[in-house]
Order: sequence, then C-alpha cells, then structure tokens
Amino acid sequence: MQDIDWYEGDFADPSAVATALEGYDIVFHLVNGTTPASANIDKIADVSANVISSIHLLETCRAAGIAKVIFVSSGGTVYGNPANIPTPEDEGCWPITSYGISKLSIEKYLHLFRHLYGMNYQVLRVSNPFGPYQVAAKNQGVIGAFIRQILARQPLEIWGDGSIRRDYVHVSDVVRALELAVVYDGEHHIFNIGSGVARSLDEIVGVLREITGENIEVEYRAGRPVDVPVSVLDTSRAREELNWTASADFTQGIADTFAWMRRQNDFRSSGGNKVPLA
Amino acid sequence: MQDIDWYEGDFADPSAVATALEGYDIVFHLVNGTTPASANIDKIADVSANVISSIHLLETCRAAGIAKVIFVSSGGTVYGNPANIPTPEDEGCWPITSYGISKLSIEKYLHLFRHLYGMNYQVLRVSNPFGPYQVAAKNQGVIGAFIRQILARQPLEIWGDGSIRRDYVHVSDVVRALELAVVYDGEHHIFNIGSGVARSLDEIVGVLREITGENIEVEYRAGRPVDVPVSVLDTSRAREELNWTASADFTQGIADTFAWMRRQNDFRSSGGNKVPLA
Repeated sequence: MQDIDWYEGDFADPSAVATALEGYDIVFHLVNGTTPASANIDKIADVSANVISSIHLLETCRAAGIAKVIFVSSGGTVYGNPANIPTPEDEGCWPITSYGISKLSIEKYLHLFRHLYGMNYQVLRVSNPFGPYQVAAKNQGVIGAFIRQILARQPLEIWGDGSIRRDYVHVSDVVRALELAVVYDGEHHIFNIGSGVARSLDEIVGVLREITGENIEVEYRAGRPVDVPVSVLDTSRAREELNWTASADFTQGIADTFAWMRRQNDFRSSGGNKVPLA
Repeated sequence: MQDIDWYEGDFADPSAVATALEGYDIVFHLVNGTTPASANIDKIADVSANVISSIHLLETCRAAGIAKVIFVSSGGTVYGNPANIPTPEDEGCWPITSYGISKLSIEKYLHLFRHLYGMNYQVLRVSNPFGPYQVAAKNQGVIGAFIRQILARQPLEIWGDGSIRRDYVHVSDVVRALELAVVYDGEHHIFNIGSGVARSLDEIVGVLREITGENIEVEYRAGRPVDVPVSVLDTSRAREELNWTASADFTQGIADTFAWMRRQNDFRSSGGNKVPLA
C-alpha cells in the first residue's frame, strides 16, 4: 500500500471530511452508517447518519472544487421488489428498507448538485459485493458471515429457506468499475454493477462445502421482511457504456475470500490485534 | 365550518401530532415547511423539517392505528426536468430542488410503512394548486402572489421571460381528489392531480387584466435554476382509476380567487387582524 494518505475521522463531522478532501479531484463515497436490517429499526437515525452526512459531504466537495463524486449505491435495495428481473437501471425504485431509501435519496442529491453547481457524479448500484478485506464488524455480507461462522466452528444461520437468490459480485470487479466510472464521460449517471447471475444461499453453502471439504451444518430461521426473494441486476448498460463486465470466477472468488479470512483468523489467534493489509 | 376539531401545534413535535390524531382513521398530510426556492438554500434544514418530521408522523400514525394516509406530494417538482410532457406517474423522478427530493422521499417512506406494517396510503402529486384560502405568508403560488401585488398596486414580478408554463389546478378539484383517494381501493398508490393544461405566466397576466379591466404592469427578472420551462401532468390514471378530472374553469377560478383575496385585503385595511373564513 504505497502512495496512499490515510485519514481517520467521523463522516458526520464536516471539518474532518474537508481535511481529507483537500487537494483531490475525485471523491469515492462508499460510507454507510447502517445495514438494511438496522436501518428499519431507527429510520430517523438512518436518514441522519447517511442522507444528512452525505449532503454535508457534497457541500464540502463543492467548496473544495471536487470535479466528480463516485457514489456506491445499493443495487440490492434501491429497487425494492422490482417487476423486472434481471432489473435494469430505469426500473421504478420502491425500496422496502430505510437503507434503500437513503441510498436513493443520496443519488437524487448528486443529481441536484450537478444541476445547481455543475459538480459531476456517477452512481454505481452495486449488488452484493464480497471478497478479501471484507471485515465482519458491520454484520453485512452473507459470504463473509458464513466464512466467519465456519472459522468459528459454528453452524451457518440462514434467514428463510435458503432459496433466496442474490447477485454476488467480487470486489475486484467492483474496483474495476469504480476506476472506469472516473474516466467515463457519457450521458449516463447510474450503472448497475453485478454479476448478472442469481445464486441461492444454498448454492453458496455448496461452494463452501466444496472448498473446505467439510459437511457444514446449516440452521434455517424465519425469513425477514427486508429480504426480497430474488435480486439480480441487468448490467447491460455497464457493458455497453463502461465496457465493464464481471469477470471473477464465483467459486475461485469465494476460495480467495475464505483463504484471506482464515489468515486473519490465524493472525488474531496468534495474538495479533490489527488486521494486516496483505 | 362545523364538525371540525382544530388543533394548533408544531409538526416537528411528535406529541402534538399524536394528540391531533387521536380517534381518527384517515390522515391527510399536507404539511411542508419550505418552498422549492428556500429548500435549496438549506438542504439539511429541508430534510429535517420535512422528511424527518414526516417519518415521525408515520410512526405516530402507526402507533395510533391509522388506516390510511393521504399525502399531497408535488407534481411540479418530483419529476425534475421530465423527458415526457405531459408527464405520467411512472416517469423517472430526478428533482432539481431539495423540496422535490424531500417530497419523493416521503412517498418512499409511505411505501415502506405499507410494506412493513400494512398501513395504507395514497399519494396525490398535485401540480400548481390555486384558489380561495391561499394565504400569501408562505410566498408560494404565483397566482396568489400576482393578485397580492395587484391589490397592493405593485407591478407583477416574473422570474424569466413569462413563457414558463405550469399546470394550474383549482383547489376545489384538489379537494375532490383528496376525498376520492380516501375510498379508492385499487392497485395504484400514486396519482397525478392537475388540469393537464400548460399555461404560461403571460396567460395568467392576460386573465388578470381581463378580470380587473386594468393594464397591469409586469417586471421581468432573471430566471431561476429551480424553474423548469414547462411542467404539465398526464392525469389519465386519476381519470381511469379515481374517476377524477379537473373541472373548474380557469378564468372563473382566478376570478373567484381574486374576489376572495380582495375581501381579505379590504378586511385587513378596515382594521381586522384575522383572516375571516368565509
């Protein structure tokens, strides 16, 4: 990790954000203070932590003369229960979580800031990202959660019957999309970023059994109202406009993630208290 | 005004709202703390005054067992600069004011509360309402503003060149749509409520000259970025589903509004300090 300046600060603190932005042209906004499940419990806290803090960020970007903001939105929640699957970008957005409403609102403010002040933006509606460096602290991302449970020798917990299908995209593909969004100069501002393939929770369990060679135990629990049965993105716009398509192999991607998380686990078990970055 | 209980309180105060809701089944939500122009100046205050207070309202409605919330949204701002004119309900919504984003967010929370808790709702995206009882204090509504300027013997102020066209709908038609939304039980939750006719500012001036018989003076000022050139709603869904269509005559509606505002003006001039209700 060279040529990286690292600042730590509270996203809700505009002066901390202003310090971090100084001298840069492009801002990648990947912050979210809640999860789809937690956001519904306190919707007002969700608006405050995400929407209001993001408006502060945009005001700060505008004052700092930032040329473009790349925002990672949520391909899995902004559409709610969409009529069209795979779901294209121009589908109506009726989220069934406060999390999704907040992501959608931030997209609207990006558009507003472009209209009022000429600050450019791109929105990537990323499906369900996974891969190395996925930390478990936020309790988000089922692949990371499954691997953590396996490493802790606990049974896997599945909400619902295991048939829920999602569009999992490897972080290396997401990073490539973020880079392409910086240089893209066409008419579109919203891109779905996903594998375009719907995979069930039971399929993930199958892959994990294959990788570990173990008969991993699964406990099925009641489904949650925030979980739609299937979510998979139509990514043809990203292919046509950004020349982007997901290329990581699913099984290999899970194997990489598993290997990385096991190294983390071994490191912690050996008395390390910081996550090594490579 | 009989059989009306009147409560005064701050919309931002959930306990005041809870008192007002007690014992009712239907809530009409018509509150907005900002205007399209003022909202852009302080976007965070706009979110707080409108979105957060509306989430509080919905939580209170849920606790009070309210069956249905009818929300007056903004047909003139939620669509931004729409591709389709007249604009149907399923047009993409990219507002160019924070006001429009807040209205849109509240629509999304209504959908969320229905999904999570089964509380029913209808959204009326009302275009530019006008008519008697339109008070000038909020600085909203160009017809009311024009009449106020005429009564004060001031020249009319027009932002832009007078060709800006809007969809003006008489308050009596809006009230009828609100009533129909209460009993409507079909699959739709969003209705455009407008006249379906685009009228320019210069046309309104023409009608006012006709009504008053005076050569009203107009001062043209620079256009504002919050004003789209034309906004007119496609109201076929309301016609088909609610059996609603705007029926008030435009010239007669302006004449009624003028007569009502002149009576108010005369009443104030004679030393009255309260607005009489009839």
